[in-house]
Amino acid sequence: MKRAAKAKPTAKKAVKRGEGPIGIICGGGAIPMAVAKAVQEQGRPLTLFPLYGFADKALERFPHRWVHLGAIGRLLRVMREAGCKDFVMIGSLTRPSPWQVRLDFTTVLALPRFLQYFRGGDNRLLSGVTEYFEERGFRLVGAHEVAPQILMPEGIVGKHRPRKSDEEDIRLGFELLGAMGPFDVGQGAIIFGLHTLAVEAAEGTASMIARVGEMRKNGRVKLPARAGVLVKAPKPGQDRRVDLPAIGPDTVAQAKAAGLAGIAVEAGSTVVADTAALVRAADKAGLFVIGVAGARKKSRG
Amino acid sequence: MKRAAKAKPTAKKAVKRGEGPIGIICGGGAIPMAVAKAVQEQGRPLTLFPLYGFADKALERFPHRWVHLGAIGRLLRVMREAGCKDFVMIGSLTRPSPWQVRLDFTTVLALPRFLQYFRGGDNRLLSGVTEYFEERGFRLVGAHEVAPQILMPEGIVGKHRPRKSDEEDIRLGFELLGAMGPFDVGQGAIIFGLHTLAVEAAEGTASMIARVGEMRKNGRVKLPARAGVLVKAPKPGQDRRVDLPAIGPDTVAQAKAAGLAGIAVEAGSTVVADTAALVRAADKAGLFVIGVAGARKKSRG
Repeated sequence: MKRAAKAKPTAKKAVKRGEGPIGIICGGGAIPMAVAKAVQEQGRPLTLFPLYGFADKALERFPHRWVHLGAIGRLLRVMREAGCKDFVMIGSLTRPSPWQVRLDFTTVLALPRFLQYFRGGDNRLLSGVTEYFEERGFRLVGAHEVAPQILMPEGIVGKHRPRKSDEEDIRLGFELLGAMGPFDVGQGAIIFGLHTLAVEAAEGTASMIARVGEMRKNGRVKLPARAGVLVKAPKPGQDRRVDLPAIGPDTVAQAKAAGLAGIAVEAGSTVVADTAALVRAADKAGLFVIGVAGARKKSRG
Repeated sequence: MKRAAKAKPTAKKAVKRGEGPIGIICGGGAIPMAVAKAVQEQGRPLTLFPLYGFADKALERFPHRWVHLGAIGRLLRVMREAGCKDFVMIGSLTRPSPWQVRLDFTTVLALPRFLQYFRGGDNRLLSGVTEYFEERGFRLVGAHEVAPQILMPEGIVGKHRPRKSDEEDIRLGFELLGAMGPFDVGQGAIIFGLHTLAVEAAEGTASMIARVGEMRKNGRVKLPARAGVLVKAPKPGQDRRVDLPAIGPDTVAQAKAAGLAGIAVEAGSTVVADTAALVRAADKAGLFVIGVAGARKKSRG
């Protein structure tokens, strides 16, 4: 399988990457572990900053300092202590409960600034947070830059191939995502027969996939067996250093449960924590998984 | 309240409308009754063709001939017998069960033609069916042309007004719908704080609204009380003679249950079966309802 190692860094300023240890602020899911392993394989020192209540305990096998979501003062301090000038933020932060959030003084002082970013969608919030760290001497880098192995390669992975009609649906899906991009919405859609069955907004990919399964069950849509393609791509304005779409064996399981035929994602900008596990799951489920290069550029958006 | 009676017919050919009786093919819901009443008030003769299993029994108070969905041969015959050159198709056809569909010979002969329309989304299917009837000497007219009273007027109906932030959300929502229009998807979206919470595809408006309610309950999104605007507009390529978005007291009830602040629809191209009932429901629920003129034209789509 080819590796999509040629993905270009998308940072706007051409900052010189430091050679010191990489800091990895870790949310939930399997991807922080994959990134940490990939960085370690390359021989670069690293310190993890797992977030209480989100990150996996297993990350403790790496040098680490636990931090609370919201405790920016402590985070800045431990990152300085560990000498991590470059840092990565990776993993999910779904549904934080109040007990998971600990605002420290630094955070409280920064709050008015962060709150002003809240209106205007994800993109503005994330770029605001990024800017805040950069002003304090840290450089946010993309997980895909320090660990390109975690990116979806171009082409079909696994043994199943999309049919011609699936390919048409994939094309339409990427066009639709492209058109929605300027509105800071739509990392995903599900298409069948050039017909859009579902569009992802705040509910997330898993919930959107489940919805198609429900619509089949309750007769809202009538589809043949193994029909429909999940199409995923980053939003055009999205800061790829902080928020890349991800797929894994669980995505395959969800797609199979909803009766879909396969999954198409943008190559080089979709995170795959464990490609071998993804391929095994797809082959077993009878689904195709394809990475499409430059999917966004082909769009009208 | 102003009436949006100046809505222009959108038929592509400038056919001369006949003066004979109007035929109304009636699906489910309250709108066929509203259209029939409105046509009768204008003194024009009419015959209804209610569809078994979908249409309301109460429609029998008008001259009528029941037909089965799928029995095109019989439909053409009874429409000719009733002298209905002009006809309207209105009402919902959600989830037809096999027992509701009766294919007669005429339908079976036309099937290959209809099937070819199925790929390519609603718009192509509907325009294909329309063409079929027009070739046989019938003229499909929009319910809004024979009964302009049923259209949403411009401006605020009811006593509640959108806040300034709601107005920004409404603008973004219409822009998003405009951008999605070329993809034959997206009659609706729900926006809060310039953030798109949900986009409607095959699941329908009610299901999309319920989804936002669920995301609030399970903590997937955190919104203040009474937040979020339901925005609805016809798809740009949509044939307005066969498929206009509709709102009513049930839409208000759904929006209230999901904690939304209000509803914005395109004026002059959204059907309101009973405006008085809509206003009563909105006033009681504390929601605003606004008709926005030329909402689509303001879009980037």
